[in-house]
Parts: sequence; C-alpha cells; structure tokens
Amino acid sequence: MGDEVKLYGAGGSPFVCRVKFALKMKGIKYENFEEDISNLSANVLKYNPVHKKVPVLLHNGNPIAESLVIVEYIDDVWKGVPILPQDAYDRSVARFWAKFIDDKCNPAAFKVFGSNGDEKVVAEACEQLQMLENELKVKGTKFFGGDNINLVDIAADFIAYWLGTIEEVTEIKFFTKDKFPKLTEWADEFVNCQFVKEILPPRELLLEFFKKRYGKA
Amino acid sequence: MGDEVKLYGAGGSPFVCRVKFALKMKGIKYENFEEDISNLSANVLKYNPVHKKVPVLLHNGNPIAESLVIVEYIDDVWKGVPILPQDAYDRSVARFWAKFIDDKCNPAAFKVFGSNGDEKVVAEACEQLQMLENELKVKGTKFFGGDNINLVDIAADFIAYWLGTIEEVTEIKFFTKDKFPKLTEWADEFVNCQFVKEILPPRELLLEFFKKRYGKA
Repeated sequence: MGDEVKLYGAGGSPFVCRVKFALKMKGIKYENFEEDISNLSANVLKYNPVHKKVPVLLHNGNPIAESLVIVEYIDDVWKGVPILPQDAYDRSVARFWAKFIDDKCNPAAFKVFGSNGDEKVVAEACEQLQMLENELKVKGTKFFGGDNINLVDIAADFIAYWLGTIEEVTEIKFFTKDKFPKLTEWADEFVNCQFVKEILPPRELLLEFFKKRYGKA
Repeated sequence: MGDEVKLYGAGGSPFVCRVKFALKMKGIKYENFEEDISNLSANVLKYNPVHKKVPVLLHNGNPIAESLVIVEYIDDVWKGVPILPQDAYDRSVARFWAKFIDDKCNPAAFKVFGSNGDEKVVAEACEQLQMLENELKVKGTKFFGGDNINLVDIAADFIAYWLGTIEEVTEIKFFTKDKFPKLTEWADEFVNCQFVKEILPPRELLLEFFKKRYGKA
C-alpha cells in the first residue's frame, strides 16, 4: 500500500520549509497544499485546532502539527538518510539545539526588527546567536550535523536565509561575518546545498513580504 | 561496566521532577546533587552554559540539559517501562502535547499569579487548559498515556501538583473540578500514583516557597 502524504503549508514560512527539507531528504512524494496564512483553510483548522497554524502533515489520514515534531516523525517513519543522529547522546544534543533555536534564538533575532533595532534587543539576539557560533566552532564541522545536514541545520533555516532578507529590508544589520564568522559560513553552505536551494522560497518573494510587514513597501 | 548517572536538580522544581519520574520508571540508580537555584554550583554552569539552569543529567560524563530532552534521552537509552509510545504516530502526538504544555499551558497558567488574577489572563490560561481537558475527554483514559503514565503525564506535573499549591497561596482559583472535570480527576490520579508520591516535594515546602515569592509569608 502506498503512503498518502499531504502537506498544508506556505512556501514563505521557515517552519514549513523545515518539513519540506525532511521530506526531500527521505525522498517522499507528497501533495502540497499552499495555504493563505491570513485565511487558513478549513482543513488546517480541523487538523491543527490547537495552534491553527501551518505546517500540518497528513500521513495516511493522521494529522501532525509543529514543525520539529513533524520532522522527528518523518525521521521515525521513513528510513534512508537519517535526520537525527543514530547515537542516543548525539540525538539529545541535536534536540537540545533545535529547541534552543525555537525557544531563544529565533524569537530574539525576530524581536530586533520589531524593536526597530533597539541596542539592548540587538545585544540579546547576538548573545543567542553567539551560542550557535560557539557550538559550530567547537564541532569544527561544515554543518551542525557534521559533513551532512541534520535536525539542527534544518531548525536553523530562518537564521540561514530569512534573517539576511529581513536585515536587507529593515536596514538593521547584526548577523555579520565579522561577529559570526562560523555561523555566516554555515549559512552560505546551507543555502547553497542543491536540495535546499530547490525548496527555499525566491528571495524576491520574501523581500516583498517583509517590505509590506515593516512598512517599507 | 556500570553506568554513572548524576542529577543536578532542585527538589521543588517541576522540571527536575520530570527527570526523577523518568529515572524512577526505568529503575535507574543515580547520585542526586541538590542545587540552590539562587546560587548554582560551578558544575551546573559548566554542564549547562547555555541556559544555566537545572535539571542537568550527567550520564557517564556526558551532560544533557532541558527536562523534556533529558526524559527522551532516558527513554532512548534504558529499556524497561516505555515513556514514549512505541508507535511512531502516537509518539508524535505525545511530543506535540508535551511541547504544548511547555510553550503554552504552563506559561499561561503561571502568568495568572503574576497578573494578580487579571480576568483576561485567567481566561487565556483556561483556554489552554481546556485543550488538555478536551484531549483527555477524547482519549477517555485515566492518563494521557492510557492506562499508564507517559511523556505527557510527566510533562504536565506542574498542572497536577504545583498549580493548586500556588492557587492556595495566592487565593486565585481557576483550576476547578467544575471547569475541568477530566483534568482535575487526572491530576488526582497522577499525584496519587505511588512512585509519583515518592518523588513530589512536600506540599509544605512548596507552600512556604510560594508564600515568599508572592509576598504572603
């Protein structure tokens, strides 16, 4: 019996792209439902009544929500390229960093633009990004996953691609090669992976979206 | 070779108790290091430099932080009573609810006391708790894990035990049998499990702690 896989998402969302990366890594074919995030479909509201958000993955009729939960599910169900490390300790370290990115790093970075670049808010974002910079320095590898992309690289897609785009729109720049030599190098490597490039939304589309959001249109 | 397991924690913390429940479920012997959370030891700062918080588990010299990450690690490494469901879909559902409790439910409930019972804040907390109430109603089981405790029950320990204690101290009550018949029944079942009782901190100790915190001492 073939698997029926449906993804309810929005191409411009870094959370949705996480799921697309995972599906691509496993070579899973799926039906993509593009949602209007300002007017979600009845399906999304039905399948994710708690958060009323995309992404939602529907696998043989079973709905799964929350991007990192979905990525772990995909890794659990489909063999092939592993997304989480095989070793239990390494797996816990990957989960730790993925959680850190969602709980601390992304909110701190995002807050900068809402605060119009307030110095304290920028300092807080830099402090969180520095944790990832240090982790890459200690590991000494190309990706958080070593030679290959893993859960942490996927989780950090906002930093790799979206952050620079919002910086360009708002003209508030703090994610620099000077301050974060390893993390900016990692971002370049990540966005230039062939399979990543195929999934990332066009930069022009993001620029347009954020110009509207930050009143720069 | 025997395992060396050390837990750096504080008995009054619901996050630390999550780890203690997991270790108990697996029958793991460990050395307990009681920390003063207002003056953490050099070990905690060394092993959890990112968050500088307890709990930290040290397994054969490898540090792991973040309570839910630790609980998943314990379930990964030690056989015996399972903490996460065996089925991949059920596992994703358990992870979804554990994350919901940390991201939405606990912060919303905790905020009530900081807001001195502001009506809107209480309504928001009730809305989040209602999601758990509904989930229990749909499942129709004693625990989130079915007949036995699983990751979600462990994750919800704050709701089961701490919430009522803070309500008593602050005299702000919203987690009632009237509003949440299933969830309050679940809380009773959970705190009356023999192995849970053995781990929960004495109620008097919590009352004393929160009386100081909320200026009721």
